[in-house]
Amino acid sequence: MLLNDVAALNRRLQHNHFQQWLGLTAVDAQPGEVELHVPWRQETESSHDGHFVHGGILAALIDTAAALAIRTIIDRSVRTLDMRVDYHAAARGALSVRGKVIKAGRTIATSEAWVYNADGVLAASGRAAFFFLASPDP
Amino acid sequence: MLLNDVAALNRRLQHNHFQQWLGLTAVDAQPGEVELHVPWRQETESSHDGHFVHGGILAALIDTAAALAIRTIIDRSVRTLDMRVDYHAAARGALSVRGKVIKAGRTIATSEAWVYNADGVLAASGRAAFFFLASPDP
Amino acid sequence: MLLNDVAALNRRLQHNHFQQWLGLTAVDAQPGEVELHVPWRQETESSHDGHFVHGGILAALIDTAAALAIRTIIDRSVRTLDMRVDYHAAARGALSVRGKVIKAGRTIATSEAWVYNADGVLAASGRAAFFFLASPDP
Amino acid sequence: MLLNDVAALNRRLQHNHFQQWLGLTAVDAQPGEVELHVPWRQETESSHDGHFVHGGILAALIDTAAALAIRTIIDRSVRTLDMRVDYHAAARGALSVRGKVIKAGRTIATSEAWVYNADGVLAASGRAAFFFLASPDP
Repeated sequence: MLLNDVAALNRRLQHNHFQQWLGLTAVDAQPGEVELHVPWRQETESSHDGHFVHGGILAALIDTAAALAIRTIIDRSVRTLDMRVDYHAAARGALSVRGKVIKAGRTIATSEAWVYNADGVLAASGRAAFFFLASPDP
Repeated sequence: MLLNDVAALNRRLQHNHFQQWLGLTAVDAQPGEVELHVPWRQETESSHDGHFVHGGILAALIDTAAALAIRTIIDRSVRTLDMRVDYHAAARGALSVRGKVIKAGRTIATSEAWVYNADGVLAASGRAAFFFLASPDP
Repeated sequence: MLLNDVAALNRRLQHNHFQQWLGLTAVDAQPGEVELHVPWRQETESSHDGHFVHGGILAALIDTAAALAIRTIIDRSVRTLDMRVDYHAAARGALSVRGKVIKAGRTIATSEAWVYNADGVLAASGRAAFFFLASPDP
Repeated sequence: MLLNDVAALNRRLQHNHFQQWLGLTAVDAQPGEVELHVPWRQETESSHDGHFVHGGILAALIDTAAALAIRTIIDRSVRTLDMRVDYHAAARGALSVRGKVIKAGRTIATSEAWVYNADGVLAASGRAAFFFLASPDP
């Protein structure tokens, strides 16, 4: 099943423990693009005083949004092969992440994602390569 | 302060909300190398049935171990500039992650990290570049 | 000196043996963006029969365009810290590469670049992080 | 055919225009590992005065050595999916590059490579993911 609307994306996010713990919700879906809302939670912060979201959390957001962007146009389960994340500015509070397909081939797709602070500052961005699993996604 | 023994590393891990939530503990420290133990917790899993640890968690482990490896030899706070993660096999249950410095310059260092399942299978690996902050780490 | 027009970019490309050998010429310059033309030459190909441009050449194009995009807005020499390249389709014949700044900070900038075949097919894309050298560029 | 000795690797390097132009020769082959010698040539330098080898050339070396390392143990043509390169120090003169397999799966393999100056200084390192083409390599 294609995950090409907000409702389908949100049902999928509910089937993933970590994404559920992060409290991710889809707020936009276009062909090849998704946007997720990321609420603040203290356990995701990197220090007791600085109030930055941990870089590993930002990587998880990029992985998730990049994968779901592919699922808006490809009806196959995908597995992340590799990912690059660039950190641009401190991430604080509630965030948004936008994923977008760069290129989808027959067995591999590449997509990118952009994490923003609430004030629109780009906190992190990255790209990942995904492999399509043989069976269509249930 | 250099974090060049297991006790110093574990004190540092306690000052980070997300690393504390992950339950990370240092189990080895050598000059330019660290090893962390990662207990299993259900919230880090990627699906309700597959019991895989989420790729974003593996990225967080690589970021953390790669950064701490630098802190065994460099007495400066470091900020992650960018990271690459490769996913090799499903990660399940308790894990270990080993970080190792590739090259430390005057303001930038690069290190790598390797995430293993309890049976020794390599689940993920990666590398990251770090920038040294101006002030010595408190 | 900022390299913020096609003439300044082309003068700079002439001061680099490898970029000169590649025959690169700037064809567009905007604040934070450049486009280069890449003529075909047989020595850049990957095999004697397939007529693909070698992936290392595409990496060189991405590195070059990503660096020059920064030089349109930052008057400092830059050194590449690291780069990621994704290969999407075979590159053949004359190519174009477009570089664009993602984020420029005080000492580090990140930019991306996109390599196209003459028919507009995306052959490769990537991103790189750059460090600003202390002295202004002569 | 596996390329599991120096002679087989050198025959393969001869079938690639760009690798031939670079003058690459295999000097060591182990299961999952290769080492190549890289002669100096002026056209690969980055500037008219600094005498640094261009970062794109180092990327080409990493791509080539990482791919050939796989070919010592996998009898399939491989295509580079993506690559990361880290630049550690200026590369000057004749170089050597050593490639090593990180993990080989059924359709994807990841390997790393390390570029050294003649004095043993690590100039660059990186890793790449490769896809196995369907047909065995002729």
